[in-house]
Amino acid sequence: MTLTRRGLLGLAGASVAGVGLAAAGPLLAEDRQPAQVVPFHGAHQAGITTAVQGHLHLASFDVTAPDRASLVALLERWTRAAERLTAGLEVGEGAGGAPLAPPDDTGEAVGHGASRLTLTFGVGPSLFDDRFGLADRRPAALADLPAFAGDVLEPARCGGDLVVQACADDPQVAVHAIRTLSRLAAGAAAVRWAQLGFGRASTTDADGPTPRNLFGFKDGTANLTADDREGLDEHVWAGADDGWMAGGSYLVARRIRMTVETWDRTSLQEQEQVTGRTKAEGAPLGGRRERDQLDPTSLPATAHVRLAHPSAHGGAKMLRRGFNFVDGSDGLGHLDAGLLFLVYQRDPRRAFVPVQTALSRSDAMMEYLRHTGSSVWAVPPGVRRGGTWGETLFA
Amino acid sequence: MTLTRRGLLGLAGASVAGVGLAAAGPLLAEDRQPAQVVPFHGAHQAGITTAVQGHLHLASFDVTAPDRASLVALLERWTRAAERLTAGLEVGEGAGGAPLAPPDDTGEAVGHGASRLTLTFGVGPSLFDDRFGLADRRPAALADLPAFAGDVLEPARCGGDLVVQACADDPQVAVHAIRTLSRLAAGAAAVRWAQLGFGRASTTDADGPTPRNLFGFKDGTANLTADDREGLDEHVWAGADDGWMAGGSYLVARRIRMTVETWDRTSLQEQEQVTGRTKAEGAPLGGRRERDQLDPTSLPATAHVRLAHPSAHGGAKMLRRGFNFVDGSDGLGHLDAGLLFLVYQRDPRRAFVPVQTALSRSDAMMEYLRHTGSSVWAVPPGVRRGGTWGETLFA
Repeated sequence: MTLTRRGLLGLAGASVAGVGLAAAGPLLAEDRQPAQVVPFHGAHQAGITTAVQGHLHLASFDVTAPDRASLVALLERWTRAAERLTAGLEVGEGAGGAPLAPPDDTGEAVGHGASRLTLTFGVGPSLFDDRFGLADRRPAALADLPAFAGDVLEPARCGGDLVVQACADDPQVAVHAIRTLSRLAAGAAAVRWAQLGFGRASTTDADGPTPRNLFGFKDGTANLTADDREGLDEHVWAGADDGWMAGGSYLVARRIRMTVETWDRTSLQEQEQVTGRTKAEGAPLGGRRERDQLDPTSLPATAHVRLAHPSAHGGAKMLRRGFNFVDGSDGLGHLDAGLLFLVYQRDPRRAFVPVQTALSRSDAMMEYLRHTGSSVWAVPPGVRRGGTWGETLFA
Repeated sequence: MTLTRRGLLGLAGASVAGVGLAAAGPLLAEDRQPAQVVPFHGAHQAGITTAVQGHLHLASFDVTAPDRASLVALLERWTRAAERLTAGLEVGEGAGGAPLAPPDDTGEAVGHGASRLTLTFGVGPSLFDDRFGLADRRPAALADLPAFAGDVLEPARCGGDLVVQACADDPQVAVHAIRTLSRLAAGAAAVRWAQLGFGRASTTDADGPTPRNLFGFKDGTANLTADDREGLDEHVWAGADDGWMAGGSYLVARRIRMTVETWDRTSLQEQEQVTGRTKAEGAPLGGRRERDQLDPTSLPATAHVRLAHPSAHGGAKMLRRGFNFVDGSDGLGHLDAGLLFLVYQRDPRRAFVPVQTALSRSDAMMEYLRHTGSSVWAVPPGVRRGGTWGETLFA
């Protein structure tokens, strides 16, 4: 499939229209959900500080392209498609077209609008081997994650050369986006693993309620927020001295199975001591309200929020963007449920790695968690109009 | 866990409030999604003709209870919990309570409202063995499904003694409901298999758009609708002469993996010939609009909608209520995606079985489908206030 002249012209017109309509409200009468467009282009990629959407489809890909030119061509196809998808448009000539050719668009998201779709692209450590001439371009911050105490990683849920995080308020839109990119990758990359997740639309608005994880606790109270520009520059965005990654970020993705059946049999007191917050309100233990100042040293030494607190890690903060998941049952009478923990940071060596090292050794919550998947990604800076995902890497 | 006097009183008050508020709009300012309550009690169970919600969590259970009394006690616990859950309430004393006891409610749906949650209960053929004295109560219509051509069923996705279908506009609400019932079943029943699915909220309103399946085609154009009382009485509801099942229905659940990557490589013409409808509009081939009258005999002999048409099966109609699913990837570079086909009918022997027999032999679409899970359920009539799921079976 190639994007035709007509397709590209259609995109240009629709992008302009999309901006106007997003401000004015839903695009189409048949869309009951808001059909808002999140701008694709910018200094940073969308989908990092974007207010968290209701649904996630994240896919890791192995590159099968034979050479660098084929890989770059894939990223160009992907970028052009991502521009259309995030604008709520069908790719190419759409779900119709010539009868004797496969339709350019698979069609299942027709009529669903943009639904705040964001597509966020990253590259994994394995891309920097000798296949594509990138061996000397690997950022130091994209270090392999160390083994953590208690890891029970499944290789089929780990690693990969490329990642795309699709987030949208409509799951069918996120699913369609990953399927479309997977299809456009034929002969150049194949899905290695994929994970669906759900959260709650708009929960990370400054005024919105804090979402709850599957332990029933509020999760993300002390998270960085999109309007904290200083905090984001310090903790999330790679800086001007970070070469091709300037303006980018690093994503760590961990699939954390939560043994909810065991958790559910523990007392409220135990749950709150393990977490370090109250269950109903989400207040730090000893406090009354969710946003009361948290004094980590007043909490049990093994409390999750004490061990994860920035004060224990030289002030390191991360931008969390996790989604709950339920992948059916485990065949033993339990739900295969948990959290796809997604966290963005400027340097995992100074953020996720020390925090998870401390948690994996001492966190009382570890008794109820199993880390079954793991990956780390360099997420390049945003794409200018006409630009391509990852172009600074290949420049 | 037991429901306390306080819990029951809380339920009674909230049900009344819920009805009024559902009519008036969202219950709480913090709920961005509509927090409507679908009445739990009635002549038929909710979740069958209820306008299809956006999300499904369906769980099959094996009964482990040692005797009939324990099974009946489970159904009483479940029913009381279902009344609260569908009203948007926490179960028991909620996510708080005594510090030294596990909280009655796991808490992750706090603040999410009812989100049109419906819980629909059924029993499988295996319940009618000699464990619970039900051997002579098995309805003739609850016959085991025959083997169909092309079945590739996985035992871990088939059968079960009990089923609960949870549908809601918020996935966290549907997940919480199944988790809560699973938890209340400890010692009496264990999850055998479970499946999440997504559709599109409110798509089966008479005026709403028809949802699209993962082949990108509109699915359900000719479905029975909730306002077709005659059609429902004829095709969906068990009649007065059906004993304990009068007012109930029969559910067939099939997990249909769709090989979307293969489908996506076929031409538009092939896709439309296989389906018997146009892709963009959903019109029957030869027609112009989606709801144009379909003349099955004008379609290719192997077209899906021709073979499934009621005229080919003595007028048999079914009420479809399917949900799309994506369960990650299959480990071979493909999405593990498809349709959880759910269909309600008065007698599967005269509806699903002959239709699927014809489809499995001749449907051109079978090339792109793999039936990996299968089950059939007797779904008892609705619950009166103070009544219990399945009470007519045990009467």
